[in-house]
Amino acid sequence: MLIVQKFGGSSVANAERIFNVAQRIAETYKEGNDVVVVLSAQGDTTDDLITKAKEISKKPSKREMDMLLSTGEQQSVALMAMALAELGYPATSLNAYQVGMMTTSTYMNARLKKIKPDRIRRELDRKNIVLVTGFQGMNRFDDITTLGRGGSDTTAVAIAAALHADKCEIYTDVDGVYTADPRVVKDAKKIEEITYDEMLELASLGAKVLHNRSVELAKKYNVELVVRSSLTRAEGTVVKEVCKMERMLISGVAGDDEIARVSLIGIEDTPGKAFDIFTTLAKKNINVDIILQSIGRDGTKDISFTVADTALTDVKEIVATHMDRWGLKDVDYNENLAKVSVVGAGMVANAGVASKMFEAMYDTNINIHMISTSEIKISILIDKKDMHKAMNAIHDAFQLVD
Amino acid sequence: MLIVQKFGGSSVANAERIFNVAQRIAETYKEGNDVVVVLSAQGDTTDDLITKAKEISKKPSKREMDMLLSTGEQQSVALMAMALAELGYPATSLNAYQVGMMTTSTYMNARLKKIKPDRIRRELDRKNIVLVTGFQGMNRFDDITTLGRGGSDTTAVAIAAALHADKCEIYTDVDGVYTADPRVVKDAKKIEEITYDEMLELASLGAKVLHNRSVELAKKYNVELVVRSSLTRAEGTVVKEVCKMERMLISGVAGDDEIARVSLIGIEDTPGKAFDIFTTLAKKNINVDIILQSIGRDGTKDISFTVADTALTDVKEIVATHMDRWGLKDVDYNENLAKVSVVGAGMVANAGVASKMFEAMYDTNINIHMISTSEIKISILIDKKDMHKAMNAIHDAFQLVD
Repeated sequence: MLIVQKFGGSSVANAERIFNVAQRIAETYKEGNDVVVVLSAQGDTTDDLITKAKEISKKPSKREMDMLLSTGEQQSVALMAMALAELGYPATSLNAYQVGMMTTSTYMNARLKKIKPDRIRRELDRKNIVLVTGFQGMNRFDDITTLGRGGSDTTAVAIAAALHADKCEIYTDVDGVYTADPRVVKDAKKIEEITYDEMLELASLGAKVLHNRSVELAKKYNVELVVRSSLTRAEGTVVKEVCKMERMLISGVAGDDEIARVSLIGIEDTPGKAFDIFTTLAKKNINVDIILQSIGRDGTKDISFTVADTALTDVKEIVATHMDRWGLKDVDYNENLAKVSVVGAGMVANAGVASKMFEAMYDTNINIHMISTSEIKISILIDKKDMHKAMNAIHDAFQLVD
Repeated sequence: MLIVQKFGGSSVANAERIFNVAQRIAETYKEGNDVVVVLSAQGDTTDDLITKAKEISKKPSKREMDMLLSTGEQQSVALMAMALAELGYPATSLNAYQVGMMTTSTYMNARLKKIKPDRIRRELDRKNIVLVTGFQGMNRFDDITTLGRGGSDTTAVAIAAALHADKCEIYTDVDGVYTADPRVVKDAKKIEEITYDEMLELASLGAKVLHNRSVELAKKYNVELVVRSSLTRAEGTVVKEVCKMERMLISGVAGDDEIARVSLIGIEDTPGKAFDIFTTLAKKNINVDIILQSIGRDGTKDISFTVADTALTDVKEIVATHMDRWGLKDVDYNENLAKVSVVGAGMVANAGVASKMFEAMYDTNINIHMISTSEIKISILIDKKDMHKAMNAIHDAFQLVD
């Protein structure tokens, strides 16, 4: 098999951990597999480099930031190659130039475009373990770029796609994707298999295990992803296109209490108002999540939407500026809410999911402020203080425990 | 003018020093020059990276060492580009891939082969200050190499040669090349101009300002070198092919007390013996400096040579192993010697230099153990304790002070 593995920065933070990971890699290699490993920068290296840059300039050039930050991963792959050699395994480190990791030109937030897998293939043919710098690429000007958040996961999936790898293992500090956050729901259980779409919904709902970009890429190229722990030998969670038939209706429950609701009240009920409002917000890079519009009444309507609570200051400023143009009577902000969602590919064929969820809320006396549904997800907005209670109630109601 | 400048690691060790150097670079740029700057890794960065590698492996792969160490210079050029931008000057950093710095394949000690100056030219055409990583290159396998000792100086000279730069300024912590080490000879005076050949002799004699590799390369491509201080505005020393006519007979006096003399006694006087001995030493990477062979007597001869004192342990081992094959009667080691040399291109046309030097030794009652001469250099071996006295006496005798 050809296996791509990705280890994050904390897994390679010092010599001891590097050797732990090297052992892990060696085990896969010894089983007769071809192994490509993507690494992040060691522990605090990236933060240290950012500090250095900030000492020079409050707003350093993004191009130069990428030139600077990309050195972190290069150090990781070189050190890992040394560790593998020390254990007696042949290994070669490669950087973005060497694997032809072509990206768009946007520094600090580039998108992958193409990989020239020739060099990696050549090294694999020589029975070398190949160590590739995560998070970075090069643009058409031959300049170094970095991929932004979740970059190394994305690198791993892209390499797996380019090489048609049998699987792409993302090693992390948890041993898989859970039916709910185990710190909130005691009975939460590791999910054996989950579809890309479900994983995308869960990731955006705050499961925080895999970055959406890497899941999207895996879905696009049908790369089998495995999320597993670098600390234990547990099997982990497999993310793929189609899962077993006898799966549960619901894959998981997620909660997010870092949100705020904005209600624009008494908007003149004429065409183009909503368009104007959300275009303005998008232009200011405000990510809007749930949107709800009331039925018009007295020639006016109300529009409510949720945003990340960190964006609220910006939203308040934008609303204040456009209050008159949008013809608002009033505006209301609520930061005491949380969003709880259930996700499951089985949901689309089963009408009872929503009612079961609402019943669980009714039984535990939790008031629902807003509801939003998609084909594989139902989200509700409730009081922040009720979030943990709601997650447990829903988890019980759908019997997510065997 | 097109000017290449090189700054060492201590000049860019922290944010404050980076800004000092940035000011310096900006001054040259403001005068209307095209400026290419070669930088070393910051202060202790290289040593810190070596420590990290040694924690992983006592004898790390050289290829991976180069992958690791080359990140240091990349950080320096990125940070300097940020500092120049902060001061309001356009700057771009480039690494070995981007400037096509082709080298031989020998990791950790590669030789430069070729530079593709297109990218640097393009950046200069855009009126950018170009910052290039010193010390590193890439081999024909697309792998990163480093150039070994004096690497960044060599990078600077090579770029100056490839771009036909008007001069190559090497910034260091002294303000030029002196007629003798100012710490030893109080009257030592900065040399205004010196030829490549003289500089080569002085460098190998321990002047420690410029590395021989960079001087050799400068000579080969006729690159005008300037050695000057990064701390003062003093003019520095110009190194070039032909110097002014009215120069002094002698350029400088150098002393080296980190040497040892090896005397092989009673070697059978048959052809091929010396060849055998020095081939064996060369194969073991022992650099032999002065060689002196006595006139044969009783069918045997003596051969004495000097080596760096750090090589003595190895030499003793080699001699012990080959004692019988070489047919040695005895061997003698002397670590209490020093080498003092005078260098000057004017010497070749003047027979009186040697006798003046010997006279100075006689006057100060210093015993000469060995003598070696070249066209532009005379070296003598004396007792280590006499070295400083000898340097001062010679400096006086040749009136190296105005």
